[in-house]
Amino acid sequence: MPPSPPATPAPAFQTVAIVGVGLIGGSIGAAVKARGVAQTVIGLGRNHERLEAARRAGVIDRVATDGAGIADADLIVVCTPVDRIAADVVALTLHAKPGAVFTDAGSVKGTICTALRSELPAGVSFVGSHPLAGSEKAGFEHADADLFAGKVCVVTPEDGTSPEALSRVRSFWQALGTRVVEMSPERHDAILALTSHLPHAAAAALASLLDGSESEFAASGFRDTTRVAGGDPDLWSAIFSANREPVVHQLDRFITKLTDLRNAIDADDQRRVSTLLSDAKQRRDQLN
Amino acid sequence: MPPSPPATPAPAFQTVAIVGVGLIGGSIGAAVKARGVAQTVIGLGRNHERLEAARRAGVIDRVATDGAGIADADLIVVCTPVDRIAADVVALTLHAKPGAVFTDAGSVKGTICTALRSELPAGVSFVGSHPLAGSEKAGFEHADADLFAGKVCVVTPEDGTSPEALSRVRSFWQALGTRVVEMSPERHDAILALTSHLPHAAAAALASLLDGSESEFAASGFRDTTRVAGGDPDLWSAIFSANREPVVHQLDRFITKLTDLRNAIDADDQRRVSTLLSDAKQRRDQLN
Repeated sequence: MPPSPPATPAPAFQTVAIVGVGLIGGSIGAAVKARGVAQTVIGLGRNHERLEAARRAGVIDRVATDGAGIADADLIVVCTPVDRIAADVVALTLHAKPGAVFTDAGSVKGTICTALRSELPAGVSFVGSHPLAGSEKAGFEHADADLFAGKVCVVTPEDGTSPEALSRVRSFWQALGTRVVEMSPERHDAILALTSHLPHAAAAALASLLDGSESEFAASGFRDTTRVAGGDPDLWSAIFSANREPVVHQLDRFITKLTDLRNAIDADDQRRVSTLLSDAKQRRDQLN
Repeated sequence: MPPSPPATPAPAFQTVAIVGVGLIGGSIGAAVKARGVAQTVIGLGRNHERLEAARRAGVIDRVATDGAGIADADLIVVCTPVDRIAADVVALTLHAKPGAVFTDAGSVKGTICTALRSELPAGVSFVGSHPLAGSEKAGFEHADADLFAGKVCVVTPEDGTSPEALSRVRSFWQALGTRVVEMSPERHDAILALTSHLPHAAAAALASLLDGSESEFAASGFRDTTRVAGGDPDLWSAIFSANREPVVHQLDRFITKLTDLRNAIDADDQRRVSTLLSDAKQRRDQLN
């Protein structure tokens, strides 16, 4: 469903603040503006020059390098690395207006939601989010207003989550063209360990075996299989750390499956190899 | 370099025969015709109906279901699965005219070149080839005349290879827009075990871990990393069998690297994880 911006109605939000205007934050800003989801988009970050460039590029309207800059925001979307999100939310609650709602775009939810469960002042809410869209590229220069269109956004309310805040966050992501799915932070982390964090680990391990002399013989198969290994090492190291147990569990499953395949090849058991590959193909074909 | 067909000169080959008109054979036929590399392209296969459809689709000119049909071919390109190539070449030499040159497009070279070293009658030559281009799709319906443009084609002459035959095979692949690289069959197999066969094994093992219920949370990272797992299980089982030792060696390297990363994550050694990911990113970025 290629979604078109709402024709005439007033924006759903007066002011949205984006904390961390990189690829994801920049794409959220671009999408908010393209779809008229808010009247004003504030970009908060540490580097004034970069933020000014993002403003000139049209992905935000207003620049802030201090928490005070988000004082009038209705919704604050924290797009910093996963190991900084909880601390950034806590620090910014000092400046947020009563009724402000915080969400995020982090790839891990458990550690963040747990850290924020008891840390928020009254009148301010946090609801965890993870839009399942991304890129191995970095920086608002690669921002894409359509990055989220048609994608899934996982939202992770908990027992104490205010229904109003949840409803605001859901409608925000829906307005950006995503299909919102609710689940617990723990279930999110267990699933994403398999569908996102394990592929990254596999791609990195594979890419690290390549010598320069062999590069010219790496065709599309190698390139596709290792594409995500181009992602930022520090961002990913933080993700693995924040989702350690589920990631290690999926790596163990993967190593077991690889060893099974390795042993079948070593024994020249073509029937077993073919069965393993057929099962894989069947599961992969369901994604198309 | 988007290569344009030669303007006026006579075709380099009178008649080229393609044995096995699937995705690769069909793309070779389409490229030969688009670039005017031969006057006539014969398609040889077992299924007359499929071959007629390929002819109507314009990827071959003439249909043959019997070896006698290649009697006038100057060059015969065998595009059957790797476990059938050597036997197909031997069977077809009975019908080939004196001076005819055979080549192939198989993903493994050692077993094929070894099998053919002493099997060919006088006056007929074989030179192994492997154009490094492909797709997880199957069938001439997905044939692409530009599949080989700008890609590498490995050609594997041996001590006894006739220089004339080598020169003919080189010029054929060059006319299809590839950059030809010569090496021994054994070196080809060692490199491709890493750059093509291992990614396939990794993608298959990864895809086989996915449950239907998790599919909707598999975003572009999972999809890219597992794309090649959609390939034909029997073709790939034959490739793994024909290149067993190098593939097992690369799987062992991969499992060791994954275990290293797994242990670093398990120990929450973020510096070690970041170093592993940085090394991987550096190697992956060199492919772009």
